[in-house]
Amino acid sequence: TPMTNRNMSAKASAGRLDGKLREKTLTLDTLNPQVKAVEYAVRGPIVIKAGEIERYLEEGGTKPFSEVIKANIGDAHAMGQKPITFLRQVVALCTFPELMDSPSFPEDAKRRARRILQGCGGHSLGSYSASPGVECIRKDIAAYIEQRDEGVPSDWENIYLTTGASDGIMTILRLLVSGKDSSRTGVMIPIPQYPLYSAAISEMDAVQVNYYLDEDNCWALDINELHRSYQAAKQHCQPRVICIINPGNPTGQVQSKKCIEEVLHFAYEENLFVMSDEVYQDNVYAPDCQFHSFKKVLYEMGPEYFNSVELVSFHSTSKGYTGECGFRGGYMEVINMDPEVKAQLVKLLSVRLCPPLAGQAAMDVIVNPPQPEEHTFKQFHQEKSSVLGALAEKAKLTEKILNAVPGIKCNPVQGAMYAFPRIFIPPKAVEEAKALGMQPDMLYCLRLLEETGICVVPGSGFGQKDGTYHFRMTILPSIEKLKVLLGKVRDFHIGFLKEYSGLE
Amino acid sequence: TPMTNRNMSAKASAGRLDGKLREKTLTLDTLNPQVKAVEYAVRGPIVIKAGEIERYLEEGGTKPFSEVIKANIGDAHAMGQKPITFLRQVVALCTFPELMDSPSFPEDAKRRARRILQGCGGHSLGSYSASPGVECIRKDIAAYIEQRDEGVPSDWENIYLTTGASDGIMTILRLLVSGKDSSRTGVMIPIPQYPLYSAAISEMDAVQVNYYLDEDNCWALDINELHRSYQAAKQHCQPRVICIINPGNPTGQVQSKKCIEEVLHFAYEENLFVMSDEVYQDNVYAPDCQFHSFKKVLYEMGPEYFNSVELVSFHSTSKGYTGECGFRGGYMEVINMDPEVKAQLVKLLSVRLCPPLAGQAAMDVIVNPPQPEEHTFKQFHQEKSSVLGALAEKAKLTEKILNAVPGIKCNPVQGAMYAFPRIFIPPKAVEEAKALGMQPDMLYCLRLLEETGICVVPGSGFGQKDGTYHFRMTILPSIEKLKVLLGKVRDFHIGFLKEYSGLE
Repeated sequence: TPMTNRNMSAKASAGRLDGKLREKTLTLDTLNPQVKAVEYAVRGPIVIKAGEIERYLEEGGTKPFSEVIKANIGDAHAMGQKPITFLRQVVALCTFPELMDSPSFPEDAKRRARRILQGCGGHSLGSYSASPGVECIRKDIAAYIEQRDEGVPSDWENIYLTTGASDGIMTILRLLVSGKDSSRTGVMIPIPQYPLYSAAISEMDAVQVNYYLDEDNCWALDINELHRSYQAAKQHCQPRVICIINPGNPTGQVQSKKCIEEVLHFAYEENLFVMSDEVYQDNVYAPDCQFHSFKKVLYEMGPEYFNSVELVSFHSTSKGYTGECGFRGGYMEVINMDPEVKAQLVKLLSVRLCPPLAGQAAMDVIVNPPQPEEHTFKQFHQEKSSVLGALAEKAKLTEKILNAVPGIKCNPVQGAMYAFPRIFIPPKAVEEAKALGMQPDMLYCLRLLEETGICVVPGSGFGQKDGTYHFRMTILPSIEKLKVLLGKVRDFHIGFLKEYSGLE
Repeated sequence: TPMTNRNMSAKASAGRLDGKLREKTLTLDTLNPQVKAVEYAVRGPIVIKAGEIERYLEEGGTKPFSEVIKANIGDAHAMGQKPITFLRQVVALCTFPELMDSPSFPEDAKRRARRILQGCGGHSLGSYSASPGVECIRKDIAAYIEQRDEGVPSDWENIYLTTGASDGIMTILRLLVSGKDSSRTGVMIPIPQYPLYSAAISEMDAVQVNYYLDEDNCWALDINELHRSYQAAKQHCQPRVICIINPGNPTGQVQSKKCIEEVLHFAYEENLFVMSDEVYQDNVYAPDCQFHSFKKVLYEMGPEYFNSVELVSFHSTSKGYTGECGFRGGYMEVINMDPEVKAQLVKLLSVRLCPPLAGQAAMDVIVNPPQPEEHTFKQFHQEKSSVLGALAEKAKLTEKILNAVPGIKCNPVQGAMYAFPRIFIPPKAVEEAKALGMQPDMLYCLRLLEETGICVVPGSGFGQKDGTYHFRMTILPSIEKLKVLLGKVRDFHIGFLKEYSGLE
């Protein structure tokens, strides 16, 4: 007999519950503890606070500033950077192929869009692609890599499109970190690091193995520190993978070729799987620096290395000169992976079906941009140079202004899109933070936000040597805005020092 | 002193290795065993085989057929379905806002695109959105749900955009399944099921708790079977969550209101978290069936239920009448989630930054389509009705043709986009399959593929009662193609029966 609603309700409130609210199934106590352990400072408490202040201002509230400047995340377009016209033309053509008939779209863009659509089921961006991505895009990426690496061969079947680089990084870690005995899998990461790594390690319950970058040496990676870190970790886990971010996030250093050789040699010797986060490969500003891909360096070390070290390199549409974060495009190139494991990787990717097609198309434009002989080259080149030129200028400017502030020391921003200055925090402020149960640089950044509207991320969110304090800020605001921002940081810092040094 | 390449190579080959290849770090033996355990039939071995045959044909090889028809996956555009013009116009306008000046784009589309861009950082689809999605899109979704559910309130802050529905389902399971004692967390799923569920359960090392749908009763969900399944599972795990797919995938049934009430009452009584996969909510074809959302039914059961049962409902751009799989758009509505858990959910989402913006925009069009008073309504309505009308016709056609084949029995395709016919497999074929270490319906589907080029998925990939065999095929090919396809299935089946019944 069917129960009526009334019957069920009556049973429910009269029965087991006695009028009390039913207990929740999912509470903080029953939540997966590994989720609880995850921290992600780039969008953490300070950013939530910034959002609150933003809403407060919108609703007519007043603050000593008129807008919140979100320098917490590498979100170029949100900071006013304009999209690369050609990229958007290709994606728009793929999205709405009726535009192929429009004379306002260049033939170069149409040719690329046609080619991409040719690779899509039903010639539509609305079809699933194969899980590793659209075949012709994978081929374009392989061709790009060969060119970038001056002829080092790249096999398109080693290329896997991803949903941003984060997705690729999580997927590869998932292969490496076992659930059951996961507490034994060590993952070596730089400190300071981009907190996707620590978050993934927490979520998967692996062991985070820190190797510290050398702040006094422009955040260089010191091979001796790698050995120290590895040996120390060996006591309590099995380090199986080493992650490198080059150019560095949040630290902005660009690794030398020699340093990369040393890392690869170390990985070779210790049988480590290498994950090389190279999403900032187009973001190198310092004239004496150059991007060297881990793959090319591995190749040049000879076949014993090139045919054996397992290496995955990640790239993305979100950074570089395009800054297309919202498209969630990216790829990874997988070298020397065991063929049986590769089949497992494809299987794992297939559960999520495929990366977004618009992001795949955007990635294709990045690896296959207008060539000098094409009509669209001039505008494309202009737009690209303008973005990269401005970033180089802002990198210099940021370093210079910050280093002129007493109690702030900022390494050169050789690449990527962040400054990670060291800040002196007076002992009194450290004490106050501790009393509040807060990291000292969190206190600092919260004060900065509340007094100036500038949102930066505390160094503690990336990791830093004990007793040192930093923050990460992007160099993405326009030059004018950046100058104002840096001026405010300076004034705030001086005031903060005064206040906590008892000089006020 | 810097090592030269030669030095390192010499050391490497002369040292530890003695000329032998360095061992791989990551092999099938050291791979995360939970990844190994994952199975995903929809893109499994049979689909890999189909791809091989496709390539063989392209390269000039010959088969008894000229093309492979992929009826394995609900990929509408790949099967020739055309995109909804209005949706693509809005997304193209968002992608390339210069088109706002084009007279060939309707004002209705421009208005929506402007509104979406207004909600994006820097008014660009290239910015990250907030991790739960663009605010105005969340609001549009909430308004859509209120309208769909005839006034049942929906709070936009309970809406989270996702990267397709799969991403949302994985995320919610991640909260519920603990790593450390995960083998104690039971996840109740229907059998047959969409294998994302079993794959996620394997990956997270939870316990799969099967409840069987009643094939003899048009795949209805029987409440007694839920009780049986729950009690049996209690012996070895703690069932914490029940997953429902309505309309059903692969089974095509549409749940009655009474049945949904019973499920919700059961979840209430047993303190289960409810995950309701409603991605086919627009795909109901049987005239006597209607889509009832779990949320609306919960509301109508009264406040004791509506204010307590934790429910998440999933939707997607990939199905319905749009079939925009490649955009990887979707959302989930989260009801009665503990506020502290919600904060943890937002944190977890933030690690992946945000769902793709083009997919978010596509989702917005689906929940905010042209209204009768808008100029674009007529064309939109025509396109939508044409897709849904054809699907309804194909649902009927498929059922009818399959049921006319001796040894095939197909329940009515009330909704979704698949037929899941039961097939009789002669004992001799079952034996042969077993000798080959293969499921009998895998043997059947492989033979079907090799003899006809038709790619369908064996029932064993979805789960089925022991001793019964099925396959899943989509009803997405055009009517003409579908007729040919079903004719080939019929002929194949008759031949297969003859062969293995010793009649040949």
